[in-house]
Amino acid sequence: MVRVAVDAMGGDLAPHAIVKGAQAAHRENLAEVVLVGDEGRVQPILEGGTSMEIVHAATWVDMDESPSTVLRKKKDSSINIAFQLLKDGKVDAVVSAGNSGAIMAFGIFTLGRIPGVDRPAIMTINPGVDGGIASILLDAGGNVDCKAPHLAQFAILGNVFAKYVLGIESPRVGLLSNGEEESKGNELTRDANALLKTTGLNYIGYMEGNDIHHGKVDVVVTDGFVGNVVLKTSEGTAEVIARFLKNKIRSSLRRKLGYLLMADAFRELAKAVDYAEYGGAPLLGVNGVSIICHGRSNERAIKNAVRLAAEFVNKELNIHMNEAMEQYSIQNKSREI
Amino acid sequence: MVRVAVDAMGGDLAPHAIVKGAQAAHRENLAEVVLVGDEGRVQPILEGGTSMEIVHAATWVDMDESPSTVLRKKKDSSINIAFQLLKDGKVDAVVSAGNSGAIMAFGIFTLGRIPGVDRPAIMTINPGVDGGIASILLDAGGNVDCKAPHLAQFAILGNVFAKYVLGIESPRVGLLSNGEEESKGNELTRDANALLKTTGLNYIGYMEGNDIHHGKVDVVVTDGFVGNVVLKTSEGTAEVIARFLKNKIRSSLRRKLGYLLMADAFRELAKAVDYAEYGGAPLLGVNGVSIICHGRSNERAIKNAVRLAAEFVNKELNIHMNEAMEQYSIQNKSREI
Repeated sequence: MVRVAVDAMGGDLAPHAIVKGAQAAHRENLAEVVLVGDEGRVQPILEGGTSMEIVHAATWVDMDESPSTVLRKKKDSSINIAFQLLKDGKVDAVVSAGNSGAIMAFGIFTLGRIPGVDRPAIMTINPGVDGGIASILLDAGGNVDCKAPHLAQFAILGNVFAKYVLGIESPRVGLLSNGEEESKGNELTRDANALLKTTGLNYIGYMEGNDIHHGKVDVVVTDGFVGNVVLKTSEGTAEVIARFLKNKIRSSLRRKLGYLLMADAFRELAKAVDYAEYGGAPLLGVNGVSIICHGRSNERAIKNAVRLAAEFVNKELNIHMNEAMEQYSIQNKSREI
Repeated sequence: MVRVAVDAMGGDLAPHAIVKGAQAAHRENLAEVVLVGDEGRVQPILEGGTSMEIVHAATWVDMDESPSTVLRKKKDSSINIAFQLLKDGKVDAVVSAGNSGAIMAFGIFTLGRIPGVDRPAIMTINPGVDGGIASILLDAGGNVDCKAPHLAQFAILGNVFAKYVLGIESPRVGLLSNGEEESKGNELTRDANALLKTTGLNYIGYMEGNDIHHGKVDVVVTDGFVGNVVLKTSEGTAEVIARFLKNKIRSSLRRKLGYLLMADAFRELAKAVDYAEYGGAPLLGVNGVSIICHGRSNERAIKNAVRLAAEFVNKELNIHMNEAMEQYSIQNKSREI
């Protein structure tokens, strides 16, 4: 069975919700889970439930610490010990809801990068109209100032994910821009557009923000600044619509009755857009499977993240990504940066 | 009464919907409207309704023509003749649903820029939870590769709009970023963040995509690439939610009944997010009032755009913007670009 190290100390609800989620995953045989954290705090949470292996970590990373500081001072933190276990072959994947900058920093520092990848990226899943997966997007926040070869590398990594995890034979790769015409775009996208055409990927060119959820493209490529703004804007728009409707429904008895009759449709919507359903966002491009969970992750999110991690390991995602970086022609160009 | 030139030939539904919208605005005394376009095509649409002044234009700009081409070859187009009327003092404002790149190009070419403004910006209105205006955003697509002084100029222009049109005494200005902490942002936002602190505006620092609709900030500042992606992402998210719910409602009689009982709440939502309600997006920073309407503008959108244009003229927006560019300290710095 796949072995997954879960960082028990990372996340707003750590360690309690994290340990409970890991325990649920373990109990349901999604994977064999190893908890990494302060044994004195983790062990009492396990009492009475499934017993699990704990690897003690004397310290952990707080949510507001900078990546450069933690790289110097927190090598014995729970997240880095989890990556050490992965590097040493004692586990197959890492899951953490901690400080995402620190997860990225230690992931790169301890696991190293897949050859040909300059900058690992955070990938997110975009739900579609049917509640399924409309597309994946990367980078969702790891790398703010990118150059064209970085975006081309994101495209190759995303392509592997779409192919082997989503089962799409020839994923359509789009470059997020401010219009579909080639005359649009900024300096970065114009360079990346030219480069992506040479990769041999099924590259469809520029795409716009309203195509993300609409099944026109499978892999959305952008830099981490724009990717993060896109994610937060989507979240914010969904939230404002929900609050607007809630206010309107409250204002009338007739509407309240109407809402009750179709409340399950709203619940299905809430489920479709709930990050906890997917569990987390994989960090693609480091040499090993690792999942970054939302800081607010609850028990269910952690359980689903363990499920996702096990799936990536079973589908040999890391091996395919290493192969893809060799296969596609971007590799040598990227070395010139 | 305020006189508004409407470009009868610009927009997907031109000239019919444009002429009808202009006629409605004229009839309702929102402004005195002058139609600019091919007289042979415009006049028949007016027949039987309110008669209006037509200024003949022998040619017009198509939606897919590049700004550089039209600047060379289309000086006698309807949009540029409209700007000429404004420059010559024969009208007070211009409204067009045509090619936005061409509108911007001719606006800058014919009207010139407000002193201190390097790059005029397109401003959009973001609806909030109560159906009112949560914030304004600029630039929404005019300028893709910006430097910090451009963003600071956008902030000053937006501040004037929020103050004099929205009536906010001291508008809160935020810089769109990938996180609120100062350690976040990219090269551009870090430079702009430092510069914005020196302007004397009520600058609140970095803000995230999910704050756009939530009343935390009045003026959202970003470059035109990110601004455009944000707008399209918001549109796309709202659309995917609507389609998701529609599919779910169709699948059951009970839900259909529920929907009927609260259908008016959905209609109010549709109205709150409908661009036609606002009419269009002002082009801020050119020396004169001009409104860029959505390419798909219908009769109602054009009518509301004329209303908006008249309001800007009555509130002396252009005068206030000229004053503000003198008043705020960004002006001299921006000259170093």
